[in-house]
Amino acid sequence: MLSNHLRHGIETARVAWSQLPASEDLDGEEEGPSVRISGTGVESLDYEVIENFAYREEQAQRGKLYVGYYVMLKWVLSLLVGVGTGLAAVFINLAVENFSGWKFAVTFSIVKHSYFAGFLVYILFNLALVLSSVFIVTQFAPAAAGSGIPEIKGYLNGVDAHGILLFRTLVGKIFGSIGSVGGGLALGKEGPLVHTGACIASLLGQGGSTKYHLSSRWLPIFQSDRDRRDLVTCGCAAGVAAAFRAPVGGVLFALEEVTSWWRSQLMWRVFFTSAIVAVVVRSAMGWCKNGNCGHFGSGGFIIWDISGGQEDYSFQELFPMAIIGVIGGLLGALFNQLTLFLTSWRRNYLHKKGNRVKIIEVCLVSLITSVLSFGLPLLRKCSPCPTSGANSNIECPNAPGIDGNYVDFYCSNGKEYNDLATIFFNTQDDAIRNLFSAKTFHEYSAQSLLTFLVIFYSLAVVTFGTAVPAGQFIPGIMIGSTYGRLVGMLVVKLYKKLNVEEGTYALLGAASFLGGSMRMTVSLCVIMVEITNNLKLLPLIMLVLLISKAVGDVFNEGLYEVQARLRGIPLLESRPKQYMRHVTAKEACKNQKVVSFTRIVRVSDVVSVLRSHKHNGFPVVDHGRNGESLVIGLILRSHLLVLLQSKADFQSSPYPSNLKTGPVSVRHKFSDFVKPVSSKGLSIEDIHLSEDDLEMYIDLAPFLNPSPYVVPEDMSLAKVYNLFRQLGLRHIFVVPRAPHVVGLITRKDLLAEETEASATVELQPASVRAPHREPRNVGRHAQHLEGPLLDSLLTQ
Amino acid sequence: MLSNHLRHGIETARVAWSQLPASEDLDGEEEGPSVRISGTGVESLDYEVIENFAYREEQAQRGKLYVGYYVMLKWVLSLLVGVGTGLAAVFINLAVENFSGWKFAVTFSIVKHSYFAGFLVYILFNLALVLSSVFIVTQFAPAAAGSGIPEIKGYLNGVDAHGILLFRTLVGKIFGSIGSVGGGLALGKEGPLVHTGACIASLLGQGGSTKYHLSSRWLPIFQSDRDRRDLVTCGCAAGVAAAFRAPVGGVLFALEEVTSWWRSQLMWRVFFTSAIVAVVVRSAMGWCKNGNCGHFGSGGFIIWDISGGQEDYSFQELFPMAIIGVIGGLLGALFNQLTLFLTSWRRNYLHKKGNRVKIIEVCLVSLITSVLSFGLPLLRKCSPCPTSGANSNIECPNAPGIDGNYVDFYCSNGKEYNDLATIFFNTQDDAIRNLFSAKTFHEYSAQSLLTFLVIFYSLAVVTFGTAVPAGQFIPGIMIGSTYGRLVGMLVVKLYKKLNVEEGTYALLGAASFLGGSMRMTVSLCVIMVEITNNLKLLPLIMLVLLISKAVGDVFNEGLYEVQARLRGIPLLESRPKQYMRHVTAKEACKNQKVVSFTRIVRVSDVVSVLRSHKHNGFPVVDHGRNGESLVIGLILRSHLLVLLQSKADFQSSPYPSNLKTGPVSVRHKFSDFVKPVSSKGLSIEDIHLSEDDLEMYIDLAPFLNPSPYVVPEDMSLAKVYNLFRQLGLRHIFVVPRAPHVVGLITRKDLLAEETEASATVELQPASVRAPHREPRNVGRHAQHLEGPLLDSLLTQ
Repeated sequence: MLSNHLRHGIETARVAWSQLPASEDLDGEEEGPSVRISGTGVESLDYEVIENFAYREEQAQRGKLYVGYYVMLKWVLSLLVGVGTGLAAVFINLAVENFSGWKFAVTFSIVKHSYFAGFLVYILFNLALVLSSVFIVTQFAPAAAGSGIPEIKGYLNGVDAHGILLFRTLVGKIFGSIGSVGGGLALGKEGPLVHTGACIASLLGQGGSTKYHLSSRWLPIFQSDRDRRDLVTCGCAAGVAAAFRAPVGGVLFALEEVTSWWRSQLMWRVFFTSAIVAVVVRSAMGWCKNGNCGHFGSGGFIIWDISGGQEDYSFQELFPMAIIGVIGGLLGALFNQLTLFLTSWRRNYLHKKGNRVKIIEVCLVSLITSVLSFGLPLLRKCSPCPTSGANSNIECPNAPGIDGNYVDFYCSNGKEYNDLATIFFNTQDDAIRNLFSAKTFHEYSAQSLLTFLVIFYSLAVVTFGTAVPAGQFIPGIMIGSTYGRLVGMLVVKLYKKLNVEEGTYALLGAASFLGGSMRMTVSLCVIMVEITNNLKLLPLIMLVLLISKAVGDVFNEGLYEVQARLRGIPLLESRPKQYMRHVTAKEACKNQKVVSFTRIVRVSDVVSVLRSHKHNGFPVVDHGRNGESLVIGLILRSHLLVLLQSKADFQSSPYPSNLKTGPVSVRHKFSDFVKPVSSKGLSIEDIHLSEDDLEMYIDLAPFLNPSPYVVPEDMSLAKVYNLFRQLGLRHIFVVPRAPHVVGLITRKDLLAEETEASATVELQPASVRAPHREPRNVGRHAQHLEGPLLDSLLTQ
Repeated sequence: MLSNHLRHGIETARVAWSQLPASEDLDGEEEGPSVRISGTGVESLDYEVIENFAYREEQAQRGKLYVGYYVMLKWVLSLLVGVGTGLAAVFINLAVENFSGWKFAVTFSIVKHSYFAGFLVYILFNLALVLSSVFIVTQFAPAAAGSGIPEIKGYLNGVDAHGILLFRTLVGKIFGSIGSVGGGLALGKEGPLVHTGACIASLLGQGGSTKYHLSSRWLPIFQSDRDRRDLVTCGCAAGVAAAFRAPVGGVLFALEEVTSWWRSQLMWRVFFTSAIVAVVVRSAMGWCKNGNCGHFGSGGFIIWDISGGQEDYSFQELFPMAIIGVIGGLLGALFNQLTLFLTSWRRNYLHKKGNRVKIIEVCLVSLITSVLSFGLPLLRKCSPCPTSGANSNIECPNAPGIDGNYVDFYCSNGKEYNDLATIFFNTQDDAIRNLFSAKTFHEYSAQSLLTFLVIFYSLAVVTFGTAVPAGQFIPGIMIGSTYGRLVGMLVVKLYKKLNVEEGTYALLGAASFLGGSMRMTVSLCVIMVEITNNLKLLPLIMLVLLISKAVGDVFNEGLYEVQARLRGIPLLESRPKQYMRHVTAKEACKNQKVVSFTRIVRVSDVVSVLRSHKHNGFPVVDHGRNGESLVIGLILRSHLLVLLQSKADFQSSPYPSNLKTGPVSVRHKFSDFVKPVSSKGLSIEDIHLSEDDLEMYIDLAPFLNPSPYVVPEDMSLAKVYNLFRQLGLRHIFVVPRAPHVVGLITRKDLLAEETEASATVELQPASVRAPHREPRNVGRHAQHLEGPLLDSLLTQ
């Protein structure tokens, strides 16, 4: 009887494991991404008990329905993520545009009477908005500070940072970025929108926020960690698509920058989400065109259409463009380095002093920004308007705060404009539009552009890392387009004959700075093309990006990587380090003392091991037929904690559990094993066990992952690294060399026709298995499942 | 002494293996992509002998130089691939445009006198061009037939089809596609251009064609299979970039459609190549603008600029657009199915009868195409020109064969045009431009469009699979835009108030048919946007593509997958089959009898095993300390064949080889192990061994891969599949469960700081290794290399 129980116990391990939610694990480490869901998700759903043969067919039928439901749900959720993110983006843009609009309107109505009063009002308006932002972030949603992209990258790479996907973070992000962007700080709303999209996706994926009682009926379905991460990937793409109105750019951003592994099935879904966002945003903007949205509509979403600009380029221009690339690489790398120093100083000194310091800091930054953006243009002499002619459709001068070039600010003469005010005393979207603008030769003096570059660069560096939601795209574009335009002016002067537009150089400058700082290539390129709506410059943007990335890579890593490292998010780079080639897997874990459990383990042992070790996974070892030991699987710390807490699996005998207690699914709701998305989960300290409990045993067989990935001990660490990263693993067992090879799997073995195998599955009588076998395992293969292990266990 | 030799032998296995060109292996199966090259490539370069300690430092220095040289070479080659592919594309386009131009010019000068004579000349002209194409292909370059994309996909997936990347294939592809496209067949030049790009890349990667004595000095450097495949990936992207002038589309095509795995390092290089192509093509076109290129220039590269068209869309239009998507899915799937039947019939019956049949077949198809494209417009009544007004800048009627709408063909009245001739009796590029054209309401009658759709669809199906280079993009766009325009006409009629352009619907139709047939999403979307130069329609294209792909997927696989399967190219799909979840690795190779070699093996045994088994890889087993067996690595069939042929490693004693014969690198030029790219390599039948030779032994240790990937026997096949596909493997060993776990590798172990490890490497005295140790292995870790194995071997 015992051997039967044993056989049963281990046999169910595979079944049970495949039902367990893969709380700790990424993609590959579950029974295999394919086995768990991969478009069907039967295994993760069918965790209910099937006690009777009669129900089996019905269950299989239901399983099919579930598959359809599940697939549909995935698409519906992608749709909802798209709609939600699109609406959030529209809301943020609306709010920012309106606040900015009011701010400038009020300021200028006052400025007519008194510049000083206007100055004060302007400062106070900004201060109020920024204060609201920093207040929300510090008091309510600390995880909403910054852009959030490094954290999301970490999450999708397999590292859960605390609190980044909570409902409160979402709220803090939305309202915080309205305040910080509306308050005129040197930061953008695009990065936070990516985080917002990710939050929306995560909340939808877990069926709402449990804390705020917003959870819904589909909660049990998205228990799988993988599905949630997939949805968050969709959310990221949606965020970019919404922020830049760049749906393809969004897909590529998610592909290139955010995820660490990728499946083509997911690509399709991400693509769909992005398309939905594009439709939603477009519809909303159409609605706003009718004047329903206040100040929104004129500026609105960033689309800097430069299709009226330079259509062509000559070879002579490639040299100044290459110089722009180099400048971008240098300034971008410098930006990464300066922000790194400043952020680490903030983390280690300033922000340790509490929230009050953070608030004061942000207010100071806001004050300085307001003073500079108002004051510097005042000091600048006005220039005379260009004689109309070629560019007759561009008005000069324009009233300030209004969309358009040639802003009239503190100019005595009616036919003058203030070039510094045109870019500095304006919303950033409008400033960029002015910098990109074509047909406006020599609108800006080199002096103004240089002043602006230095001041704004410093402001961007200082603002980065303060306790408000902050994106780096817009500041990057501002900085880049400034020096780009400078180079463009030089080119116009030097190559007089060529049809050169300064605005085109500004665009290339923007691309180069972003490339030099963020080090993206394809996605950034597509985003730049999509926001400027000009495909003709694509090859130039590509070349500039390549140069700036290459130059930047000489000095340091990309902005997100630098920040992620600073925040202790251990991202795995795409390639292994050099030294790993000379290290074997065994050497890499040389100093480890491997702690393994036996199949039947004493509760007190489990507790003491969990107390004394911080490992998240433990090998489980059992004895084979001849008494030799055999590794039978991997048990996760989190699952052990659940088992300890529930106590349902405790048994008094050190032998495999008695069947009479029923299958695993009776004793546990499998949702118990789901790791909460945004909390830290159980800790061993939270679990209190009596003396009697500690004397009991647990049979781990049903809860372990029976086939974790293994590597031979003398494989080079670089090879292991690749395996780890490509499959998105959490644990790899290093094992000794095998005594013999059971078989070789080649391409041919994986191409066997499905029809043949599935046909034989049908022919097998269903009565050979224990009562609670899952339907999926009924079949020819089921008998041999775990064969060798069983054989060796039978005679124990 | 013996044990020392043993130790030495096995120790060198790792070193030697890492130097061996990975002829049979893909990415992961070498010492690890990381270990071999991954940006440096030291190991694959430093195969020269270092016999003296004194040289070591110099060698290390040289290694560094080599690394730089190697990286530079990679980029230079990418540049050359871009330039080459761009020039090839320009050449093909020039030739096609000029041939077509002459053809139409001659035909029309004759038609003025006699329609019959013109008809004959037209037919003969087409026949001559097509005949030249089919002649080149059948007599000279059989691998140049078809689009070549399935084969390239196969190559990058790890399956070498014979002859696809030869120099003669390149030549055949270029001249063949000039003939077939110039000859007016229902096929395109874009698919062949992808193949052309791949050929150019492959030839550059191996340093020219050995057969035609074009090889050059860098031959030894790109011995690595992976580098070649990387370069071919660049070539594919370059092909798409050149064909459609869509650089980003090219990158995405390579990413989504062609490669089966992907590294971000490669992305950057592919991106660079595409940018180069864009610059080259643009420069060439600029040069042609001055009238240097004959008929080229007016039509030229496909850019169907529809930026003058519909800028906006209303929600009511989404329904007809969805219908276009559904039609695209249906017609695309039907196209795949029909071409599948026809191609398999051709393969099994028609083409078995020899080249003459192929030639006759193509000529027949050409005849039919010519007759239909000339004759059908003749039967069609002419329509009166639209009253000028809104579209005043579009001339009506136009002379036929000239770029433009409203073609006058067989019209009696001077103010009439023939709508069928406008699309049918024209080059395909111009036809598409006419179909996409905006501001030309009701240019085509529904009757003409339907006639054209049916006829052209049939022609495209029949033409597909004939023995000429043939792409499916252009025919697909033709078919799609025809029914798209039909739907557009309906929409114009139904929704009278809306600002609807028929040309926009034609574009969506084109996207939908391509989506329904080829099932690409992101790359196709970007390509469509890039060729039409209109970003505004992006969300619509996305949605149409999603629908058509979804509809098509209900019926069958994508065109390339279907064709690849038909041609016996075993592509691994992105997800494992359903049944694999229920099969363990052990069961998958249940019927295998694993043939393994011992470390020292008799030549006669090797010969008999290679004769009786077709396996490409064999496990090598040795005995450990206690006489237990240990799997020490994998030896490739191709390497064994090289060993047998060279005989340099034969030894008379069944004990490990004597050091005196010198290190492996003396006995072998490592380029011997490089598998020729485009030939079938050695066969066991080619090798002749004497009786004495057969009695000798070989020590396999230096030639085996010491750490192939292993999976435990009870891992599910689906999980194995993922491992296999994600890492691009060729062989996986299925091994029994391990007796214990040596260690657990987690994220933390892979994040150890580089500085620490590389510092210790420097401190180690260099004198501990055998004379010919590679510098890379000198170091702390080198001593422990293969430790456990050695320990067990020492006491033998």
